[in-house]
Amino acid sequence: MIVAVVRENFPGEQRVALVPGSVPNLTKAGAIVLIEKGAGAAAGFPDQQYADKGAEFVESRQEAFEKADVIFQVRSFGTNPEAGKADLDYMNPGQIVIGMADPLGNLAAIQEVASRQAKLFALEMIPRITRAQSMDVLSSQATIAGYRAALLAAIHLPKMYPMLMTAAGTLSPARVFVIGAGVAGLQAIATAKRLGAVVTAYDVRPEAKEQIESLGAKCAQLQLDAEGAQDKGGYAKDLGEEFYTKQRDFMGEICSESDVVITTAAIPGRKSPLLVTTYGIRRMPPGSVAIDLAAERGGNIEASEPDQTVQLDGITILGPTNLASEIPNHASQMFSHNITKFLLNMVKEKQLHLNMDDDIIAGTIATNEGDVVNSRLREMMELP
Amino acid sequence: MIVAVVRENFPGEQRVALVPGSVPNLTKAGAIVLIEKGAGAAAGFPDQQYADKGAEFVESRQEAFEKADVIFQVRSFGTNPEAGKADLDYMNPGQIVIGMADPLGNLAAIQEVASRQAKLFALEMIPRITRAQSMDVLSSQATIAGYRAALLAAIHLPKMYPMLMTAAGTLSPARVFVIGAGVAGLQAIATAKRLGAVVTAYDVRPEAKEQIESLGAKCAQLQLDAEGAQDKGGYAKDLGEEFYTKQRDFMGEICSESDVVITTAAIPGRKSPLLVTTYGIRRMPPGSVAIDLAAERGGNIEASEPDQTVQLDGITILGPTNLASEIPNHASQMFSHNITKFLLNMVKEKQLHLNMDDDIIAGTIATNEGDVVNSRLREMMELP
Repeated sequence: MIVAVVRENFPGEQRVALVPGSVPNLTKAGAIVLIEKGAGAAAGFPDQQYADKGAEFVESRQEAFEKADVIFQVRSFGTNPEAGKADLDYMNPGQIVIGMADPLGNLAAIQEVASRQAKLFALEMIPRITRAQSMDVLSSQATIAGYRAALLAAIHLPKMYPMLMTAAGTLSPARVFVIGAGVAGLQAIATAKRLGAVVTAYDVRPEAKEQIESLGAKCAQLQLDAEGAQDKGGYAKDLGEEFYTKQRDFMGEICSESDVVITTAAIPGRKSPLLVTTYGIRRMPPGSVAIDLAAERGGNIEASEPDQTVQLDGITILGPTNLASEIPNHASQMFSHNITKFLLNMVKEKQLHLNMDDDIIAGTIATNEGDVVNSRLREMMELP
Repeated sequence: MIVAVVRENFPGEQRVALVPGSVPNLTKAGAIVLIEKGAGAAAGFPDQQYADKGAEFVESRQEAFEKADVIFQVRSFGTNPEAGKADLDYMNPGQIVIGMADPLGNLAAIQEVASRQAKLFALEMIPRITRAQSMDVLSSQATIAGYRAALLAAIHLPKMYPMLMTAAGTLSPARVFVIGAGVAGLQAIATAKRLGAVVTAYDVRPEAKEQIESLGAKCAQLQLDAEGAQDKGGYAKDLGEEFYTKQRDFMGEICSESDVVITTAAIPGRKSPLLVTTYGIRRMPPGSVAIDLAAERGGNIEASEPDQTVQLDGITILGPTNLASEIPNHASQMFSHNITKFLLNMVKEKQLHLNMDDDIIAGTIATNEGDVVNSRLREMMELP
């Protein structure tokens, strides 16, 4: 079993799918690990560290695909549609490709991979079951994104986060409002609290209250909140326009008393709900900062633009779409842990063994033998 | 008594010398407060807020100087040599100018102000006595700079500060090394600790150990450390080249085990001591970050350049020279508190009263009746 790690070539992507520390876990399981030269450099892992852990090297991406049974990448073609297109030509029939693939957002890409006869495992589809927690890349990368969002807001804010009582008077703490208390939201709350901000958080799922409060934040509750706002996978689900209108008014109220708003309400594969209107943003104090972690798919904040800095009446609105990559060392460590655990779950006695009765394997495989095989994807594509 | 606040015109300067909340403190003491229109805008204080607190407005800088008995500015001519030069023509004989003036670094500017017959109070010279603590702009602005330095390092670091134990493995905390435990250093330590980093700090003054440890950081001690490394004003003083060579070797040792180094060792009016050599920086792990808060006067880090980002073998070196201005709202609040207390100390029964027996007034006044009058400055200028 040969596992190859290619250098990421999505613009600005600094992560690497495997870090040196994970190499021995694979070699012990019988794998030969090939690293495309320089693959870890941007994340702070020079080739020498991989060599020290027993990896070998290939000179090019093409050579990696030629030699490997399994390709590891952070962003496979679906999440890297331009530079990643060349990968289609390199894929071999039966080759296993493991990475993020945006299967629910980019079905066309999945079909193209299927036509290459590769077996694509889309890590976004890892089921949210206990046994798969250690493989959950969405959670691990959202942890980084939430931390980074709280820091970015602090860097753009003309105030400090903590309350300070000094000889030069008392400074009030910054008021941070986090919308969406999933993994990213909870980490943003925790980070803002650590820095001394006063934090309020909102989530459509009433179950989130306890988690929000356990971090020392205040939980804002809209009386309307529907039961059953969470799907069986644990993600927030879509609730209809009337509900969202009332929700937006409520969000605007809290924005008017906040120095920072961080929105994290993304629904996998769908357009993100609009939660904060431009009217709501304008109600914030001068110099406030808004960060929209859902900007990639429409955004939770009306005025946000993907990867742009928007200034609106002195309020700064950011829509970063790849925050995890901005902390590439730790993000790669976590991704590497996830993808290694995922592969090892498919290895029995040093051989690959794709047991389709395993929920994790069956839930994550997107393409096999020329077809899109995932039941959820086939449903979306209206295939039988 | 008319007090006028001018809009700062040093490039990138966003602070304002007086915030709306301080206006009533001055009017109650008999002052009329004039604000140059837009003076507080960049710091998040629109004109309306000043009007609400009882301030009046002038249209131009020139009008401010024409009408005022007292000018408030963050950066007077000495710290704003290009754009501030025009102020010389506006100054009236006997006019009081209060602001930062870099008196020990820019003596020529002080002489020019003297020749205009103005009374310049250089806030950097406020004595470090208990009664003057509330007026100490160096301390208040260093508080902001230290906080900001710790955040900037976090934003540039490819790792997170806190230790995280997650389903995706355990991430080690970042190791932050702070050199110089004055106000800025202590605030950098406190901020890095809040965010979860493991912090080591060093100060040449053995007295600093207790303060460093009280913040939960480890104190690195060089056995050589001299007694009497602190002058009678509480600042670190110059100790000679042999001592510094040994100190640099020791700093390099600690750098080799640090992800972040923040240096804060500035000596007022002097070239800063070189503490971290390029060899020391190269010993840091890939992706490390070094921030030199003394870059304006030569720098503590050999490779730093004022207000530049230097990349050296994948290590990022920043030399920001005006960090307080990057958190202008809170920095201005503190500055405003300081300068207001300073002026009120010179007001008796609603009249200005320059009592030269007052240590604060005598220690801070730089020019009067055409002369440089400060004894420390006269000594530096070799005047009798």
